[in-house]
Amino acid sequence: MAITDSNTGKETTFSIEEIECKARLMRAYTLTAITCAQSGHPGGSLSAMEIVTTLFLNEMKHDSGNSDWPDRDRFFLSKAHAVPALYAALVETGYHQLEDMVTLRRLGSPFQGHTDRIKLKGIEMSGGSLGQGFGVAVGCAQAAKIDGKSYRVYVLMGDGEQQEGSIWEAAMAAGAFKLDNLVAIIDKNRLQIDGWVEGVMNVDPLADKYKAFNWNVFEIDGHSIPQLLDAFKTARQVKGRPTAIIARTVKGKGISFMEDVAGWHGKAPSKDEYMKAIGELGLKEFTPAYIEKLLHAAADFHNRSTKKTFDDMPSFSRNYWWNQQDDMTVRMEPSRFGFGKALANIGDDPRICTIHADISDSIKITDFEKDYPERRNRVVSVGIAEQNMMLVAAGLAKEGKIPVTGTYGVFCTGRPWDQIRTTICYANLNVKIAGAHGGISVGPDGATHQALEELALMSILPNMTIIVGCDSLETQKVIEFGILHVIGPTYFRFGREATPIVTKADTPFKFAVSNIYRYRQRKPEFIDAFEIIPSDLYQNENETIAIIACGAMVPEAMRAAWILKEEKDIDARVINLQTIKPLDETSIMEAVNDIGTILTVEEHQTGGFGNIVAGTAARLKEKQTPLKIDMVGVQDRFGESGDAWLLTRHFGLSAEWIAERALRLLK
Amino acid sequence: MAITDSNTGKETTFSIEEIECKARLMRAYTLTAITCAQSGHPGGSLSAMEIVTTLFLNEMKHDSGNSDWPDRDRFFLSKAHAVPALYAALVETGYHQLEDMVTLRRLGSPFQGHTDRIKLKGIEMSGGSLGQGFGVAVGCAQAAKIDGKSYRVYVLMGDGEQQEGSIWEAAMAAGAFKLDNLVAIIDKNRLQIDGWVEGVMNVDPLADKYKAFNWNVFEIDGHSIPQLLDAFKTARQVKGRPTAIIARTVKGKGISFMEDVAGWHGKAPSKDEYMKAIGELGLKEFTPAYIEKLLHAAADFHNRSTKKTFDDMPSFSRNYWWNQQDDMTVRMEPSRFGFGKALANIGDDPRICTIHADISDSIKITDFEKDYPERRNRVVSVGIAEQNMMLVAAGLAKEGKIPVTGTYGVFCTGRPWDQIRTTICYANLNVKIAGAHGGISVGPDGATHQALEELALMSILPNMTIIVGCDSLETQKVIEFGILHVIGPTYFRFGREATPIVTKADTPFKFAVSNIYRYRQRKPEFIDAFEIIPSDLYQNENETIAIIACGAMVPEAMRAAWILKEEKDIDARVINLQTIKPLDETSIMEAVNDIGTILTVEEHQTGGFGNIVAGTAARLKEKQTPLKIDMVGVQDRFGESGDAWLLTRHFGLSAEWIAERALRLLK
Repeated sequence: MAITDSNTGKETTFSIEEIECKARLMRAYTLTAITCAQSGHPGGSLSAMEIVTTLFLNEMKHDSGNSDWPDRDRFFLSKAHAVPALYAALVETGYHQLEDMVTLRRLGSPFQGHTDRIKLKGIEMSGGSLGQGFGVAVGCAQAAKIDGKSYRVYVLMGDGEQQEGSIWEAAMAAGAFKLDNLVAIIDKNRLQIDGWVEGVMNVDPLADKYKAFNWNVFEIDGHSIPQLLDAFKTARQVKGRPTAIIARTVKGKGISFMEDVAGWHGKAPSKDEYMKAIGELGLKEFTPAYIEKLLHAAADFHNRSTKKTFDDMPSFSRNYWWNQQDDMTVRMEPSRFGFGKALANIGDDPRICTIHADISDSIKITDFEKDYPERRNRVVSVGIAEQNMMLVAAGLAKEGKIPVTGTYGVFCTGRPWDQIRTTICYANLNVKIAGAHGGISVGPDGATHQALEELALMSILPNMTIIVGCDSLETQKVIEFGILHVIGPTYFRFGREATPIVTKADTPFKFAVSNIYRYRQRKPEFIDAFEIIPSDLYQNENETIAIIACGAMVPEAMRAAWILKEEKDIDARVINLQTIKPLDETSIMEAVNDIGTILTVEEHQTGGFGNIVAGTAARLKEKQTPLKIDMVGVQDRFGESGDAWLLTRHFGLSAEWIAERALRLLK
Repeated sequence: MAITDSNTGKETTFSIEEIECKARLMRAYTLTAITCAQSGHPGGSLSAMEIVTTLFLNEMKHDSGNSDWPDRDRFFLSKAHAVPALYAALVETGYHQLEDMVTLRRLGSPFQGHTDRIKLKGIEMSGGSLGQGFGVAVGCAQAAKIDGKSYRVYVLMGDGEQQEGSIWEAAMAAGAFKLDNLVAIIDKNRLQIDGWVEGVMNVDPLADKYKAFNWNVFEIDGHSIPQLLDAFKTARQVKGRPTAIIARTVKGKGISFMEDVAGWHGKAPSKDEYMKAIGELGLKEFTPAYIEKLLHAAADFHNRSTKKTFDDMPSFSRNYWWNQQDDMTVRMEPSRFGFGKALANIGDDPRICTIHADISDSIKITDFEKDYPERRNRVVSVGIAEQNMMLVAAGLAKEGKIPVTGTYGVFCTGRPWDQIRTTICYANLNVKIAGAHGGISVGPDGATHQALEELALMSILPNMTIIVGCDSLETQKVIEFGILHVIGPTYFRFGREATPIVTKADTPFKFAVSNIYRYRQRKPEFIDAFEIIPSDLYQNENETIAIIACGAMVPEAMRAAWILKEEKDIDARVINLQTIKPLDETSIMEAVNDIGTILTVEEHQTGGFGNIVAGTAARLKEKQTPLKIDMVGVQDRFGESGDAWLLTRHFGLSAEWIAERALRLLK
């Protein structure tokens, strides 16, 4: 099998040396795109390069001119963060151009941070959440069996990914279905974000596992083209069993300073590092001029999409953007830092344990033990296994601990939702769930990593408390409170990107009492232009509109209030709902009674937050009391890759859009 | 170790013969309780009886007088449907009385259909969703390690349960954590609801699997007390590894006609069968008089809780309950039958495949192939593995199939939510998800099995369509439409219990257009008393209230409309939203403009449906248009075990409650 012209049947073949050479070339494509994006996953892309190259250049039957050819072999990238390697293969085999691939992770690019089958030709599945592509491959191979088709199915996984339970569901099914048309390759580079797989959550003996799940198993050198070719060939002869190829690889392979370094899992090289890396690859094609051309193509694309986003924005008499004028001066810090500081600050409480599922440093849960080695016996690493994270936490909570679990918001709510419901909420166990990377502002990782639904998932659960700080400082404050003083399941939402700090150490926080933010007058610092009053002490000022928000949308709502006042002399009451459950219903009621025009703002699918506000308003108001609500949020669509703040603008969540929507609502 | 007085340290021990005798006695407790409940799971309770008896009478250190004794050994029943065996052990060791245990599964009983640690002393975890107790046990064992405690942790699982991926996450973690204080027992009775485990989804070779996950493994006869004692004793000596005991058992063990019969998984014996079973056990304690006393205690409890529920109900001038007066005559059928009929009817379409995860006959997905053997190659059984069900379906959809997945609504939404989001919705794959057993009316299985949150989970997802029929007939109609004519992810909700048929073959159904139900006048048949008009053809009749509902709440809303008219001369517009997404916003708008007083009704956590209606109303209305909304639903709490219709009354969802809430709203 090989690259095939689906019309003529003509096959193109390559020698081992040619494949090795192309793997080197594809490494350059990968590093170039990641450098252009200044974001991405070099380590696991490089470790998989010989596997992907061998598959696309030699093993798999496919035709770039007929990407939906029914007889093509299928390739699923279950470890979808390694997608630059796949993009490189699609470029090298004629599906796409390198000049387009370098738009990787930029707003509007079809080369998303993780695979997107709708946006890009040649991609079999959309992915980015680990442990899923394997099962899709099983379904695809089963479809071939049902239809009597002869295509073969290949799926590439990571070794850290083997920690996901869904992997073993798929492995069990493939064994039971006797899918001899399925080959699973495990890119065993022995590293995951948190460090050595063996230390994070040992997956070995991996070959024994697959054998016990009724697979045919090979263990080979994943950088040896001959060994790969031989394994693929032998797999074709196996009948009645799927084949697993455990490919021993080196993370960051081919670039001296990236090899075997966990830190290169998800980090882009600087320009200097990139030039060093390209130099090591020794490719005549990558002349300085060619490199500049590629970098320029990427920058040009980014500039155009940025300009379009800016052009689409509502405009006002001046620029109100953060830190672009003196009176808009704010300090910025990611709210995840507040989470980390809370854990560092209160972590001496011997009841507190942290339970993490990889990506622990990214979400700052490691601040719990980083400077406190004596706490390390209270740290539990479960690997990439969110279901088990919740169950282990439940077991700890049952024994009087206060377990703090955490990962990205998508993964710590949607993946283990039934565990949270049945084991944690039903028994009302004191488990804390830290949902990091909330909202669209996750940025270049794209749709799969942007939590836009989790407030709906958590708020519908009985016994659940939901707390959201509006900045890093408030996040620290409310999380310390939530860990120490809320007893029962508690969800914290916070974000990845640096956002304005709009509270102070002495800003009041009362549990389930919202804060009112009122713009008073310009001051040298943005934050001083506002008065912040707990809603239970607030006296009606007969404002024209209420803007109700939470989290990182509060600073935007404040800025919108400023714009409305300065541009249109409209007074806005900004309400920060720090607790979404229980809800401060009184402050919503008062907004209806005092004002009647309400704009909700959420960095979430519209309605997850807004409908709760609307439902409360419509239930508690008198029938004749006037009410009109509009909702700013993500409009029932998935996110995209892009720079965080560009996405905030693009998805209509910035203050300019909020002000514009407020004006439309008031018309 | 043994039953221990936690004050004095005195231990009580039993001989092998005594334990065997007590296992027989506990079988009688189990069968008596299930017979009293006329609901429950005898097969897997009986297969586990020697395991549970040996643990509670001999192996485990515990004290019924001090159930929270910190030094007690912990027992987790991961296969929580076998809870009668655990209840029997708690009775036999002094925690509870048999006279109380026989209130099993009745409304108000602490002996819920699945474990509930809040309601009942001696229960370590709340459960009922498979694959979860194992991870909790891992967390509990880890807590002992952190605290330097010497208690031991035991967890009992089923062999079908080994199909859940979360099992392998927990197994991997326990091996990595070197939890030598943990013993997992697999009750390998070789049967699950759908039949032989080997055929549904083979879990063998199970010992090899646990070995490959770094466990110490024994395989023994699970009905042999000496072998069990020996395995538990040896496990105590193992250092640095958890121990798995694979206990070969017989489902239904001890009762001739139940042994090795899958049908006895979740079915109560009749009184005659019960007497035969008790006879086989040869117990002198279970005299006819004693049996009658127990049956009487159970009936008495049930009668009292029924009376209380009835006493609490709003009362009117006459009885309006279904089929209790001539004009309330309706035919009843579970809406899941409509799902089955749809599949039978359109299943010749070669694109349609069914993917099921056990409990397939219960949800009627098997109607697809039952009378159509030629369709069997389009049936995929993945075992109890909901994540993989969705992924395999995605793989099939990608290849042009129309996969129809299905299991109980809780499990097919919450368990694989991230798979539905990322793999299915993000790629907009044409996967159909049949959420059976929606709502509280699931009945005696209790909270864990009652889907009360899934409409919120599904409606927040981009690209998802949600369709809900109001009766069996409409369910068939909308599901046939949804499978054949909606392209993209589609969720169907339907119920377990027989509910009134309130539509006819010619009742109109237009996608995303709601139907208006108007009570006209009494007729011999309930259904003929109503006129049904598509909302786009409906002329405003200036009703006093709009009642907006979906699914099985529509017949209740209709009956409420009848009550309101007959009792108070109040006209109600009942709106049946057959599609929750996309929503018929126009009909909601018109209800606001024409009427302004809206009551939403949902068999769901209140707001999951009601807030969507309220949000739509508040967004689309004019500010000055009067609006007042109230919402009938489950009030942010978990369900309970009990008879389906009793629960409908108890949770305030019956027509009488709806009418009462309407009257309160109109005051």
